[in-house]
Amino acid sequence: MVAKTPPMGWNSWDCYGAAVNEATVRANADFMAKHLKQYGWEYVVVDIQWSEPTAQNHEYHQFTELCMDEYSRLIPAENRFPSSAGGKGFAPLAEYVHSLGLKFGIHIMRGIPRQAAHRNTAIKGTDKTARQIAKTASICQWNTDMYGVDPEKDGAKAYYDSIFELYAEWGVDFIKCDDIARELPHEEAELRMLSDSLKNCGRDMVLSLSPGPSLVEKAELYKETANMWRITDDFWDKWELLYNMFERAEKWCIHSGEGHWPDCDMLPIGHILQDYDENIVTKFTQDEQITMLTLWCMMRSPLMIGGEMTKFDDFTMSLLTNEGLIEVLNSTHSAHPLFRKTVDGNEHIAWFTSHNNGKDHYIALFNAGESECAVTAKLPFAADFSVTDVWNGKNCGKVSDSVSADVKPHGAVLLKLTRE
Amino acid sequence: MVAKTPPMGWNSWDCYGAAVNEATVRANADFMAKHLKQYGWEYVVVDIQWSEPTAQNHEYHQFTELCMDEYSRLIPAENRFPSSAGGKGFAPLAEYVHSLGLKFGIHIMRGIPRQAAHRNTAIKGTDKTARQIAKTASICQWNTDMYGVDPEKDGAKAYYDSIFELYAEWGVDFIKCDDIARELPHEEAELRMLSDSLKNCGRDMVLSLSPGPSLVEKAELYKETANMWRITDDFWDKWELLYNMFERAEKWCIHSGEGHWPDCDMLPIGHILQDYDENIVTKFTQDEQITMLTLWCMMRSPLMIGGEMTKFDDFTMSLLTNEGLIEVLNSTHSAHPLFRKTVDGNEHIAWFTSHNNGKDHYIALFNAGESECAVTAKLPFAADFSVTDVWNGKNCGKVSDSVSADVKPHGAVLLKLTRE
Amino acid sequence: MVAKTPPMGWNSWDCYGAAVNEATVRANADFMAKHLKQYGWEYVVVDIQWSEPTAQNHEYHQFTELCMDEYSRLIPAENRFPSSAGGKGFAPLAEYVHSLGLKFGIHIMRGIPRQAAHRNTAIKGTDKTARQIAKTASICQWNTDMYGVDPEKDGAKAYYDSIFELYAEWGVDFIKCDDIARELPHEEAELRMLSDSLKNCGRDMVLSLSPGPSLVEKAELYKETANMWRITDDFWDKWELLYNMFERAEKWCIHSGEGHWPDCDMLPIGHILQDYDENIVTKFTQDEQITMLTLWCMMRSPLMIGGEMTKFDDFTMSLLTNEGLIEVLNSTHSAHPLFRKTVDGNEHIAWFTSHNNGKDHYIALFNAGESECAVTAKLPFAADFSVTDVWNGKNCGKVSDSVSADVKPHGAVLLKLTRE
Amino acid sequence: MVAKTPPMGWNSWDCYGAAVNEATVRANADFMAKHLKQYGWEYVVVDIQWSEPTAQNHEYHQFTELCMDEYSRLIPAENRFPSSAGGKGFAPLAEYVHSLGLKFGIHIMRGIPRQAAHRNTAIKGTDKTARQIAKTASICQWNTDMYGVDPEKDGAKAYYDSIFELYAEWGVDFIKCDDIARELPHEEAELRMLSDSLKNCGRDMVLSLSPGPSLVEKAELYKETANMWRITDDFWDKWELLYNMFERAEKWCIHSGEGHWPDCDMLPIGHILQDYDENIVTKFTQDEQITMLTLWCMMRSPLMIGGEMTKFDDFTMSLLTNEGLIEVLNSTHSAHPLFRKTVDGNEHIAWFTSHNNGKDHYIALFNAGESECAVTAKLPFAADFSVTDVWNGKNCGKVSDSVSADVKPHGAVLLKLTRE
Repeated sequence: MVAKTPPMGWNSWDCYGAAVNEATVRANADFMAKHLKQYGWEYVVVDIQWSEPTAQNHEYHQFTELCMDEYSRLIPAENRFPSSAGGKGFAPLAEYVHSLGLKFGIHIMRGIPRQAAHRNTAIKGTDKTARQIAKTASICQWNTDMYGVDPEKDGAKAYYDSIFELYAEWGVDFIKCDDIARELPHEEAELRMLSDSLKNCGRDMVLSLSPGPSLVEKAELYKETANMWRITDDFWDKWELLYNMFERAEKWCIHSGEGHWPDCDMLPIGHILQDYDENIVTKFTQDEQITMLTLWCMMRSPLMIGGEMTKFDDFTMSLLTNEGLIEVLNSTHSAHPLFRKTVDGNEHIAWFTSHNNGKDHYIALFNAGESECAVTAKLPFAADFSVTDVWNGKNCGKVSDSVSADVKPHGAVLLKLTRE
Repeated sequence: MVAKTPPMGWNSWDCYGAAVNEATVRANADFMAKHLKQYGWEYVVVDIQWSEPTAQNHEYHQFTELCMDEYSRLIPAENRFPSSAGGKGFAPLAEYVHSLGLKFGIHIMRGIPRQAAHRNTAIKGTDKTARQIAKTASICQWNTDMYGVDPEKDGAKAYYDSIFELYAEWGVDFIKCDDIARELPHEEAELRMLSDSLKNCGRDMVLSLSPGPSLVEKAELYKETANMWRITDDFWDKWELLYNMFERAEKWCIHSGEGHWPDCDMLPIGHILQDYDENIVTKFTQDEQITMLTLWCMMRSPLMIGGEMTKFDDFTMSLLTNEGLIEVLNSTHSAHPLFRKTVDGNEHIAWFTSHNNGKDHYIALFNAGESECAVTAKLPFAADFSVTDVWNGKNCGKVSDSVSADVKPHGAVLLKLTRE
Repeated sequence: MVAKTPPMGWNSWDCYGAAVNEATVRANADFMAKHLKQYGWEYVVVDIQWSEPTAQNHEYHQFTELCMDEYSRLIPAENRFPSSAGGKGFAPLAEYVHSLGLKFGIHIMRGIPRQAAHRNTAIKGTDKTARQIAKTASICQWNTDMYGVDPEKDGAKAYYDSIFELYAEWGVDFIKCDDIARELPHEEAELRMLSDSLKNCGRDMVLSLSPGPSLVEKAELYKETANMWRITDDFWDKWELLYNMFERAEKWCIHSGEGHWPDCDMLPIGHILQDYDENIVTKFTQDEQITMLTLWCMMRSPLMIGGEMTKFDDFTMSLLTNEGLIEVLNSTHSAHPLFRKTVDGNEHIAWFTSHNNGKDHYIALFNAGESECAVTAKLPFAADFSVTDVWNGKNCGKVSDSVSADVKPHGAVLLKLTRE
Repeated sequence: MVAKTPPMGWNSWDCYGAAVNEATVRANADFMAKHLKQYGWEYVVVDIQWSEPTAQNHEYHQFTELCMDEYSRLIPAENRFPSSAGGKGFAPLAEYVHSLGLKFGIHIMRGIPRQAAHRNTAIKGTDKTARQIAKTASICQWNTDMYGVDPEKDGAKAYYDSIFELYAEWGVDFIKCDDIARELPHEEAELRMLSDSLKNCGRDMVLSLSPGPSLVEKAELYKETANMWRITDDFWDKWELLYNMFERAEKWCIHSGEGHWPDCDMLPIGHILQDYDENIVTKFTQDEQITMLTLWCMMRSPLMIGGEMTKFDDFTMSLLTNEGLIEVLNSTHSAHPLFRKTVDGNEHIAWFTSHNNGKDHYIALFNAGESECAVTAKLPFAADFSVTDVWNGKNCGKVSDSVSADVKPHGAVLLKLTRE
C-alpha cells in the first residue's frame, strides 16, 4: 500500500512555477537525500508544464504547443529536461532520484491535450483519435492545455491506460493530478476512470488530487480513488490563508487515515518564487511557520516542501528535521479540535490527538490573536502525564487534567503528554 | 437604418442544420424571389457551419477542421459552396441573391477559431496572432469551433474589424451571431466590440443575436448593439414551446421598435429537418401555426422561415402571404397583452395593438385550451369600429366596446378594428 | 363596475400615520369637495389604526388593545372618531363624505385581531370563535394587530362576510387591505376569500391591496381579485424611490386596464408627516413632483394624495388641477416605455401612450440625470401632429416623426400629439 | 459543573406529548429510581405544555389560555399537577424526584406568553410590562404560546432573571428550552440573555436547546451557552431518520466534550405515543435499536428515554442497563467515523473511539444495508488487543490490526479493544 503515512516531499511549484528544469530538480533531490531523507522526506515532484518548452515562470502561455508523442501523450520538453532526449521521457531523471533513495513524482492535468484533439492524433492501442474522446466543453478554467476525456467514449479508457503505462515505464512514484479535486460532481466519472487506470498500471503510485477546495460530501469518493486531495485552493504565505486552514482542518480531520489524507497544500517556506527573483523568501513569520507545521502534522496533512531547499537557513531546516514533530505526523490517530474561543480579544484554538496505539497524546495550543497570551486546554479525561514541548524538546513537568502555555501571536505550542 | 420593420426571411437551420449547401440556398432564394418577395420576404440566411467541409446534418463534428484564410477568418467550404472557390468567399452567392432582389445573410459564432489559436495564425493588419487574443476559458457550451476574443487584448478589435471587412466585401446584409445573446454579462464587452466593428465596416448589416433566452434586464444593451435578439432557446414544433412564448412575449413586447426587435425564433413550418429525412414536416397543427404567426406578428417578432420553401403546400403558403397579417407586422405599435385567464377550463389570452398612426387597432384572441370556445375581450376604450377577420378576410360587423370569437383549441383569431 | 378609471383621492397615512382623527378627515374632505372634486378627485380614505385609541403618530403600539365589537370585528375608536359613538361605526362619517359628493374609504389589515383569538370571541352567525379560525404563524411582519385567517377552517368565510357586511352598512366605498399584496403565494387563499366576501357584500367597493412590491407573476390574480395593488413598498419623498419607479412601471404597464390598476402608491406632496411636526413638507423638488405625476398618469396608476390638503400651496394645487394631465390618467391606453438610455452622462427615458380611441398620443420625456438637457424621442410611426406641452399648455408646433424638449434635472416634459 | 458526562434521563414527550401529568411523572420517576438509577439514569423531564389545563395529546391547542402568575410567568396547570396548587409550582414534584435520588427537569419555550403581551401583565421587579419586552414578529412557527423577548428592551433581562429565579426556587435541575436551537442567527441575542440568566440564577441547571437541526457553524456558541443542543429535528422510530443520523454524527462528533454535548434526541423505544393508544410501541426493530444506542453512545449524545418506562420489556431494559455500553457513553474521547462505503450492495459504516485515558478503544461496526454481512475495519494503528463484544459480553479473541464481525441488516456490533 502506498501512503501508509502522509507523504513527505518537495514540489517545484512554489519556487519555480511552470518553469522548473532538470538541474534544479537534481539539485533539490541531492539536498533532500543528504539532509532530509533520514527524517522521512522522500518524494521529489516535478510540477506543471514540464512539456512546455518556453515556460519561464508561474505564468501559463495560453494555447502554446506542448511536447507530445505520437499517441497524444505529453512528454518532457527536452530543452528543460535534457535527459529525456531520445524518447526516454522522465525515466533517466526518475532513475537518478531513485539512486538517491528517493521517490519521483510528476504533475499531470486531467484530460487530453487540446492540440491532440485539434490535430486529431492517435490513441495508443486503438483506432480512435484524440478528437473522438475529448469531452466537449470540459475545460480547465485556468489553463488551456487540455480537454477533459469523456468516459462514455470508446478509447477513453485506452488513453488513460496508455498514459499510466508510460508513467510506469518512466518509474514514476507519485502523480499530482490537477483540475480535478474540485470539479465534482461533473467530472466524477473521469476521476474514477483515471484512478482505475493508475491502479492497474502495474506500478505503485501515490495519487494526489488538486486543486481544492475538495467537497467534503465527496470524502468517501476521494478515499476510494486517491491518496491525498487538496482541501484548499492554492496556499501561499499569507496569514489569512493559514488562519482559514483551522476551519478546513476541522471539517476534514475525521477523514484522515492510512492511505487517504486530506491535503493542506505545500509549505511556502524559505526561498520561494525563485523564477521571479532569487531573493524572495516566505512572508510568514517564524511563529506562523510553527503554527503551520503544527497544524499540518496534527491533522496529518501530507507535507510537501515548497521552497528551494538548497538555500534553506537553520530555522527552516529546524522546521523540517524535528523528529518529535514527524512522529506526530506519522503515528497519531483521532486528531480533532478541542475548542475555538475568544479570550480577552485573542482567539485560542486547541487540538488533541492520540499517539500511536493510544498510550500517549498531543495537545496543540494555538494563538490566532495579535498578542502573546496563555492558552489553556482541559484534557478530555483526567490522568497523570509528563509533558514535553515538541518544538523545543523541553520538559514541562506533569499534568493531570489541563495544560497551559504562553503562546506567541499567530504562534503555536505543541505538547506531548506521556503517560506516567 | 436597417431593420426599420421586423426582418422577414428564410434561414437554413430548421431544414438543413449544419449541412446546408449552395444549391439549396439558391433554390430557396429562387423560390422566395418568385413567390414571397412581393409580400416583404427578403433575407436568405446561411446558418451555422458553412466553413465545415464534412457536415452532414444537425450534429456538430467536434474539434473538426474548418476552412480558414491566412488571417484566422473562416471561409466557406468549397465542397459545399462551389462558387466560393478561388478565395471569393460568399461574394458570388451574395451577388446571386442580390440579383433576385433579395438580401443575403450568414451565421457566425462569437470569437476566433480554436484552430487559429492552436496554430497561432495571424490577425490581419497586426503583428498579433490568434493565440494572443483568444480568451482563456471563454468557450461555447455546445460547439467546439471557437474561443471567445478578449476585448482587453491588442489585436482583438483588429480581428473583429477584419471579419466584418470581409463580410462587407462579400456583400453580406445580415449577420446572425451565435453564442452571445444569453452570455451576458460575462461577454458584454465582446458584444460591444463586435457590434462596433459591424457598424464601422462600411456596409449596412442587420445584427441578430442568438441563442436565447436573452436577459430582459439587458434590453437596452441589446437595442444599442443589435437589431434583433432571441428571447428563447431554440424554438421547435412543440406546443409547450409555443405556449411558453406568450409569457416571453409579455415580458419583451415593450422593447419592440424601429431597428430593435425581440426575436421569437424561426418558424418551423412545412418541411423541416430535411437533412434527416425528406418527409419530415412540422408537428404543429394548422391552428397552432396560425397562433404562432399571429403572436409573432402582434409582438412584431422578426419572421424567419425555417422550412424548405420549395415544398410548401397551399396552407403553409397561406400563412406567409396574408397581406393583412404582414400589415400587422410592419405597421403597428404599442402591442401588449390584455389578459390571460382561465374560463371553463380553457386559458384565454388576448393581445391588443394599434395600427400605424393609431387610427385602427387589432385584437388577437387566443385559446390555449383543449376545446373550442368563445373568447371575448373588452376594448381598452369604447368607440365604433367595423371588424375584419385578418386570417380569412371576412367582415365581422361592428363593435363598440368588446369583441368575441369562437377560437379553436390552440388556435387564434386576429381581428382588425377599423374606425367608423 | 368600480374603478373604471384609476381611483383618485386622498389618504391619511402620509400626513397622520396611525393617528388620523375625524376632524382632520372632515376638513380634508371639505377641502377636496370645494377645490378638487371638479377635477375628478373623489375618495377620502382613513388609513391604518382607526380602532386604536392611543395612537399618536406613525409608530404602532405593539400588542395594544383595539376597539372591537362582540363579533371580533374592529370598530373605530370613539375618542378619535366621535361620530362613531353608540355603535354607529363609520356610518356617520361616511354619510358626511357622501353628502359632499365624495366617496369614503377605510384601511383594513388582512386577518382577525390577535386579541380576538386570545379572548376567544365570537364569529358572527356561527358557533365558531376567533381562536378557531386564526391561522397559526400567519402574522404581519411589521404590525402586531392581527392573525391571518385560515380559509380551511369553518367560520373563516363567515368572518370575512361579517366584516364586509359591516363595512357595507357603514357605507364604505373603498377598502385598502394591508399585509396582503406581497404575501403571495402563502396567503393566496385568504386573498381570494376576502375578495369573494367583498364582492358579495351587496355594496360596490374598490379593493386596494398593500403593501408592495406585488409579484408580477401573479398579475392575473391581482386583476381577478382586486382593483389596484401596490407595485412598491411604501413610497416617500426620495429621488431614489422615484427613480426606481421607472423600472417598476416598465414591468407593470401592460397590466393596467379598466377595473385593475397597478398602484405606484401615494403622492407625498405638500405638508406631510403632520403627526410629527406641522412644518414638514415634501423633500421632492418641483421638477421631481412633475416627474412623479407624469409617470403616475402615463402608466395610469391610481392617484392618492398624501399631504394635508388644506395647507397646499399654489404649486401643489397646480399639480392636481391640470385637466390635461388628468385626461392622460383617465383616457389613454397602451402606455409603454420607448427607451432608457444614457446620453452625455444623463439618463433619458421616454414613454408613449395613446389617447382614448387612438386618435392622439402622448409622449413623456424624462431626464433622470443631474443637468438640464434636450431629450429626443422618435415616434413609433410617422404622421403629422401638432404638439402641446401638457404641463404649461403651450403650443409647441408640429412634428411628424420625432419630438424633443429641454428637460430639467430629475424633471419631465409631457407632450400631447394631436393628429392634424 | 453540570453535564460532565452526557445527561441520561427520561422525557415525557414521546409517550405523552403535550398532556403529561403528575401521576405519570411520579410513576416513571419511581421506576427509574428502582430499576435504572444504578446505571446512571437520573433526569426526569416534564416536556411542553405543562401550563395548559386542557391538553390531551400531542396536538397543541392554538391560542389557548395558559396558567400564569402575576409576573407573566407560566406555572403548572393544577388540574394536571395537583401538588402545584397554592402557588407551589413544581417545587413539590421536584422535591419528590429529588427524594428518589434523581433530578428534575422541565421544558420551556423561548420568550414570554402571548397572553401576557395581550393582557399587558407585569414583569417582576420592574415597572415594565410584557407588552414592552415582547419582540414583534418573533414567533414560533409551530406553537402559539409565546412571543420572543427583545434583548434590546428594558425589562427583558429582568423577565429572564425572574423565570430562572422561579425555577431555582422550584428546585429544577434541567431546562429543555424550545424554539431556539435552530433559530440562529436571528435569536442569538435572546439565547445569550437566557443562558446568562440561567447561569446567574444560583442553582445548577443543565441547559438543553431544541429543536434541531442546530447550525454547525455556530458550534462554539452552543458550547458557550448550553450543555446540549439538538442536531436533528424531532427524531422518531423511522429507519430513514436513524440512517440520516450517521451524517449528522459525522459533522458534530468533534464538538462533543465535558459540559457540551451535541444531542441526537430522545430514544423512541418501548411504549410510545401513549396519549393516543396504550398499545403503541416503537416501530424500530431490535437491531435498529441496537444501532441507535451504539451510535448515540459512540458520539456521546445525551440519552433521554422516550417510552413509558413502567411497561418496558426485557429487551428494552437490556438496552438501558448494559454497563459496558454506558461506559462508552461516559468515558471515551475522540470518537470519529473510520469510513462509510458500499460493499456488495450494503453500506458499511465504522466508528472508532478511545477509552478514558486512551489505553483501550472501541470500534462500532454498522450495516446500513438490507442483508446480513461481515463488516471489517482496519485499526488506525497496529497493536495487540483482546476484543469483547459490548452488547453480548462475549470474548472475541485477539486482534492486532483489523476487526471484523457479522452484522445484521440495520444492525450494529460494538467491540471493545483492550490492550494486552
